[in-house]
Amino acid sequence: MVRHQFGTPVYVYDERSLKARAREALAFPNAFGLTVRYALKACPNAAIIRIFAGCGLHVDASSGHECERAMRAGVAAGNISLSTQEFPADFRRLFQAGIQFNACSLNQLRHFGEQFPGGELGLRINPGLGSGGTVKTNVGGPAASFGIWHEYRAEARAMVGEHGLKVVRIHTHIGSGSDPAVWLRVARLSLDMVREFPAVTTLNLGGGYKVARMSYEQATDFEEIGAPIREAFEELASETGRRIHLEIEPGTYLVANACSLLTTIQDMVDTGEEGYRFLKMDAGMTEILRPSLYSSQQPLILLPRVDTGTCVPYVAVGHCCESGDLLTPAPDHHDVLHPRELPEVQPGDLCVIEGAGAYCSGMSAKNYNSFPEAPEVLIRETGEMALIRRRQTMDQILQNEEAVEL
Amino acid sequence: MVRHQFGTPVYVYDERSLKARAREALAFPNAFGLTVRYALKACPNAAIIRIFAGCGLHVDASSGHECERAMRAGVAAGNISLSTQEFPADFRRLFQAGIQFNACSLNQLRHFGEQFPGGELGLRINPGLGSGGTVKTNVGGPAASFGIWHEYRAEARAMVGEHGLKVVRIHTHIGSGSDPAVWLRVARLSLDMVREFPAVTTLNLGGGYKVARMSYEQATDFEEIGAPIREAFEELASETGRRIHLEIEPGTYLVANACSLLTTIQDMVDTGEEGYRFLKMDAGMTEILRPSLYSSQQPLILLPRVDTGTCVPYVAVGHCCESGDLLTPAPDHHDVLHPRELPEVQPGDLCVIEGAGAYCSGMSAKNYNSFPEAPEVLIRETGEMALIRRRQTMDQILQNEEAVEL
Repeated sequence: MVRHQFGTPVYVYDERSLKARAREALAFPNAFGLTVRYALKACPNAAIIRIFAGCGLHVDASSGHECERAMRAGVAAGNISLSTQEFPADFRRLFQAGIQFNACSLNQLRHFGEQFPGGELGLRINPGLGSGGTVKTNVGGPAASFGIWHEYRAEARAMVGEHGLKVVRIHTHIGSGSDPAVWLRVARLSLDMVREFPAVTTLNLGGGYKVARMSYEQATDFEEIGAPIREAFEELASETGRRIHLEIEPGTYLVANACSLLTTIQDMVDTGEEGYRFLKMDAGMTEILRPSLYSSQQPLILLPRVDTGTCVPYVAVGHCCESGDLLTPAPDHHDVLHPRELPEVQPGDLCVIEGAGAYCSGMSAKNYNSFPEAPEVLIRETGEMALIRRRQTMDQILQNEEAVEL
Repeated sequence: MVRHQFGTPVYVYDERSLKARAREALAFPNAFGLTVRYALKACPNAAIIRIFAGCGLHVDASSGHECERAMRAGVAAGNISLSTQEFPADFRRLFQAGIQFNACSLNQLRHFGEQFPGGELGLRINPGLGSGGTVKTNVGGPAASFGIWHEYRAEARAMVGEHGLKVVRIHTHIGSGSDPAVWLRVARLSLDMVREFPAVTTLNLGGGYKVARMSYEQATDFEEIGAPIREAFEELASETGRRIHLEIEPGTYLVANACSLLTTIQDMVDTGEEGYRFLKMDAGMTEILRPSLYSSQQPLILLPRVDTGTCVPYVAVGHCCESGDLLTPAPDHHDVLHPRELPEVQPGDLCVIEGAGAYCSGMSAKNYNSFPEAPEVLIRETGEMALIRRRQTMDQILQNEEAVEL
């Protein structure tokens, strides 16, 4: 039905699932209050932002542009928190509008102090602890460029003093995965930093909550990781009287499994008895880059119109003229083919790529091979379909090209 | 000067270099004539296409959209050859306009035969030979989904007979690298296929010519790989009287080193004595995805305004809130930090990322973190600067979003 009306490829979001995940996040264990910020880089469509804002979620923005986008979607500036690698050129405008800012480096802290002496801000600290083995999963630890390295807290305090700043938040997003022990350790390290900054009222533990896209994957259990953290907050309170507010910033958790990418099988080829059987979709790295980039595993649901009762070891590839455009890479090896047993299909059959809500429409190799951006559709709670992003046109792809006399 | 007028990040192309590479490609050794097709997916800006068309290059298109783009840039349809993973929905229009078509699978061949019985076309064959160890470099061999597997030539011949088709071209792009022995082997295999199709007048050996972005890399030597191929064509002629026309399809070769991405250093952080020193650019995977995706090595030229005479082991990262946004990965390990000794710089200094012409503006994680597409500038042979693509605006990023009552 979606395919009939909008064609493929098309992203299909489910409003009911989005709201259900928002409610789960809002139930994260906490001692003295909780703010859940949607990390909008995961999927920045205004409709998605507005659904979450309607559920009471605030916004985590990773760039000045994301602040702008959230404000245009109707989010109050005061509900937007900015933690960015790139200090925005129009920071003054954003800050004066009311966004909250977490300085992510000593240079950012100095800039802020120079522009807004006496101002209120947060500090993003790299606590020296990461949760993964490679840069792709680590946003904390010595291999991560995010935040002020924990050993430079004295320098940060000196700058804060010099400019009369008021540090009201500590932020320590490390991409923490599912292990409760790691979460507790980060929370304790972070609370130690809270002790060093007496004006701090909020601790932001960031995101990194895992979802299970594949049936064999393990999702982060909020109760399991959150309960010990709540205790740590309570300990601090009973010791110091400080009742610290908790912030979390889920992105993937909120949207990953609330969206599928609908594609049409448009060809299949094989490379003989010793080779592989390939399925070619009418989508690829232009719509979903994560398998090519991070060897991420996505459920592929094939819907044959004629069921042959046979399963076939298919390698699924995208529509780009690019050998790296691979939808079934080996886990941890994005450049190794990993056939998957799937029902036998024919060209024209539908393939649903599940778990396509996070870092898909928001992070893909858009317009490669001049393919247009795919549309996005929202299935309303009523069951109605609403188009929330139209398919791009060739005129739009070319609209910024300037004619030159050659 | 470019930075002053257009800001950063900005792609800067050099018209003189583009034309010089086109002339080199047109000098590829050949026995009975040569057509050089620009693989426009490498960099599809209309100005670049038009410069190459002006030099006498034809076009290799990888999708129906690329055909459309080339025609809009003024390329005659008859000079466009389409070899695609995805059979275009509007194929009839394109073919009737005059584009040349290479069937890349048995299904495509069947579709074509059904739509255009008696029509002329080419066959892209996967000769069963690849030139790399992983999918990312292999576009031939059993792990490649491109083309008709060589063992199915009999099926292809039967289909050709059934629909009265005329096969006038054989196409065997395998991404062949720099080894003359591999090139010769592919050429011989391909000429064997030419023998099987008596109407063939053209052999297309595709692209895959290496360029040296880094000083230690070895570029493909056209004379070295081309001379033995020319001999093989001459042998076929003296044996059969068939004087086969040669086509090649360079992409990277033509544009890679004719463009630099200008960026501004906007921050630096470090993770202590045991850690790393990070440089943060105002660009990243949004403008140049190849290091994150393929651990490609790009020259980084740092231009400190104040020369401290010191070199520093910097890890360069992009501006995205993404641990994988890494500009200095280890060779062959896109997720391992690989510090590079570079002159010490300060925020505000310029960083020039060289070798950014191929698969950069054309294949990047556009709009991730809501960063706008960067502008493209052409340095004319006269030295003048011409804007060939304007910087995207936030209005444009949002232009296809539909307001929904929520």
